[in-house]
Amino acid sequence: MVNIPKGTKDVLPYDSYKWHAVYKVIDKLAKRYNLKEIMTPTFEHTELFVRGVGDSSDIVNKEMYTFLDKGERSITLKPEGTAGVARSFIENGLFNNAMPLKTYYKTPCFRYEKPQAGRLREHHQFGVEMFGSDNPESDIEIFMLLNDFFNEFGISPTFSINYLGCKECNTVYKDKLRGYVKPYLKNMCPDCNNRYEKNVLRVLDCKSRECQSMLVDAPKLSDNLCTSCAEKFDKIKQTMQDLGLKFRIDTNLVRGLDYYTGVVFEILNIDKTSGQTALGGGGRYNNLVEDLGGKSTPVVGFGLGIERFILYLESIGYVFPEENNVDVYVASATDNMSFILNLAKLMRNAGLGVETDLMARGLKAQFKYADKLSCRFVVIVGEDEMNAGEVTVKDMKASTQERIKECQLVQYILERL
Amino acid sequence: MVNIPKGTKDVLPYDSYKWHAVYKVIDKLAKRYNLKEIMTPTFEHTELFVRGVGDSSDIVNKEMYTFLDKGERSITLKPEGTAGVARSFIENGLFNNAMPLKTYYKTPCFRYEKPQAGRLREHHQFGVEMFGSDNPESDIEIFMLLNDFFNEFGISPTFSINYLGCKECNTVYKDKLRGYVKPYLKNMCPDCNNRYEKNVLRVLDCKSRECQSMLVDAPKLSDNLCTSCAEKFDKIKQTMQDLGLKFRIDTNLVRGLDYYTGVVFEILNIDKTSGQTALGGGGRYNNLVEDLGGKSTPVVGFGLGIERFILYLESIGYVFPEENNVDVYVASATDNMSFILNLAKLMRNAGLGVETDLMARGLKAQFKYADKLSCRFVVIVGEDEMNAGEVTVKDMKASTQERIKECQLVQYILERL
Repeated sequence: MVNIPKGTKDVLPYDSYKWHAVYKVIDKLAKRYNLKEIMTPTFEHTELFVRGVGDSSDIVNKEMYTFLDKGERSITLKPEGTAGVARSFIENGLFNNAMPLKTYYKTPCFRYEKPQAGRLREHHQFGVEMFGSDNPESDIEIFMLLNDFFNEFGISPTFSINYLGCKECNTVYKDKLRGYVKPYLKNMCPDCNNRYEKNVLRVLDCKSRECQSMLVDAPKLSDNLCTSCAEKFDKIKQTMQDLGLKFRIDTNLVRGLDYYTGVVFEILNIDKTSGQTALGGGGRYNNLVEDLGGKSTPVVGFGLGIERFILYLESIGYVFPEENNVDVYVASATDNMSFILNLAKLMRNAGLGVETDLMARGLKAQFKYADKLSCRFVVIVGEDEMNAGEVTVKDMKASTQERIKECQLVQYILERL
Repeated sequence: MVNIPKGTKDVLPYDSYKWHAVYKVIDKLAKRYNLKEIMTPTFEHTELFVRGVGDSSDIVNKEMYTFLDKGERSITLKPEGTAGVARSFIENGLFNNAMPLKTYYKTPCFRYEKPQAGRLREHHQFGVEMFGSDNPESDIEIFMLLNDFFNEFGISPTFSINYLGCKECNTVYKDKLRGYVKPYLKNMCPDCNNRYEKNVLRVLDCKSRECQSMLVDAPKLSDNLCTSCAEKFDKIKQTMQDLGLKFRIDTNLVRGLDYYTGVVFEILNIDKTSGQTALGGGGRYNNLVEDLGGKSTPVVGFGLGIERFILYLESIGYVFPEENNVDVYVASATDNMSFILNLAKLMRNAGLGVETDLMARGLKAQFKYADKLSCRFVVIVGEDEMNAGEVTVKDMKASTQERIKECQLVQYILERL
């Protein structure tokens, strides 16, 4: 037989209720925060990600699913959600709408990584992109939204935050950092040597202990912000405090992608087996739209991995609301299929969840199956009932049984449910 | 700038409410019919589709997005939804559950086709697969479900149906058809010559008029069913009639995929610009699971293209329910961001859709924007109000304005909404 591709996963019929629980919360927040859903294709021209995500990122360098389509175009399965949304914003002239434009997406993402717990080659992300506002209110709204998202599952998150600064203060800081790093370079890892050339900021979050030990006295981003950026960062921190949004400063946090410019953040989970992983993260990327050929537009947003979030919820013992679909089982002791299915139809049209026998089971086996489905009512139809235009209704919760007119059935059940 | 890949489409923020309307109906039906969602990866090993969809189909022959991943495995973006679900059914031992197993999926599908109206290289499908029942009740349930789906949009569909028959009657019929077709072959199109070898049934739905003209006197499938299949088909037709499910027999309907065995059907739309297209279709494929290496299991199901269905709804003037997210706009005439955002937080926690100013607009521009959002309430906060712990609430519907205590705001709005 043919197996599932390595590093990918099925969500089985008896597990999808967990996804629904997460998606319901997303719908709720979309309403509360006035977010509109945007959907972009699963693949884009490869160039979009090279320009949008950046060629110093691991994603672009090592992990993309890139191939030629039948028209010899280089196509890449999207490794993250932001670049496609930004491309759509530009291409469809969405900047012509009154700003801000607050969008969200749910999308598969593809990264050719070594498969391990919480890291899949295809995973799904929920993300938000807010276009058009460079004011701290929009940064705070992102924090509030994510905070509400976690709150809905009974979790009070702490944000690790940092501030990368605008192009101006960034240029100054990058020079300082390059100056500091240069003498250590020959002892640092090849990745850091590469980062030094392409985006020196990213040496700050190198995972190698040796590299980190050399960076202890490196100049800090937060000490090198221009007045305007420093004021914005202060305002963000102050407002977070006022609103009860928990945070800690992480001066080395730069995120794995090249496009961030202002505030950046992550929500970390420290787990025994997989160590420290980010459940979600994001920040401000005011240059992205321009870098992709659009009119300069501020953007702030985040992404959150659904699979990893569900694993996290499971690890803390979160109880997902179950979905019990079946209100009524119609047990059939007659060959009159049309009669049975018509009963099912009437009840379904009234919004009830209904199952009937599709397996030609005997009455006893049908009761057993109805029991397995843990449905509230069992409607029994034999020849006797049918001829009298009646049905027998068993209420499994009240442990009662009544014979009623067929035409009263829907009403009878709706009243008792 | 980088453009969207040819033949793909964005769903823009102001269009996604149409998708939500369709997805809401799917959720509703999932509840009523006790369907469980299953999610399978976006790509599978290429072999799955060659074995599952069949190598006489146009999809497998011409239209697949196939490529080598970094591990040199041949991978294909799924061209349809069924093969992946069947693979998952086998690989995860879902046959060990009590049958039937009633699943549904919403998935992107990829076909390298010539882009035209309603035909995209990436489109989305809603589909249902019912495993485990070979009884006509399950065929009927599929028809009822699709009928309900269309009914929810005010449409009463007509099913074009045919019956392909089991392996036994099929083998006999295919021989007869091959015998009939053989003398015409040299005048038939290359595709039909290929189909003659691989799956002769598919000559029946050749789009070429010349080929069709040669098939006028071809033996009919429905005249060549074995007794058991003929009885089943009769029972299906009778029950459809009893339940008010409209249908017509189309003796040439075989569907474009190789895996069908029993009843097959389509819901056709005749459109001025794109001619006759199928809005949805499906049928029974009792050999598929076995062909893929699993234990013989009957399956019946259907697929429906979401983009094409939405285009159809638009063409008949269907009015999609709009999503107005914003109940309250908080207009700010103060620099106290925390005060404003805290008001928003309180109202959002109560489930209200709330917008505040993210653009540093003046009060007049904020009113204009609030008007654009057509929100019911505008809450105005100036220094004066703030110092008194109050807010001014304008009810845009009742055209009233009141100044109330800040702590009464949520209650005030909930009572009037």
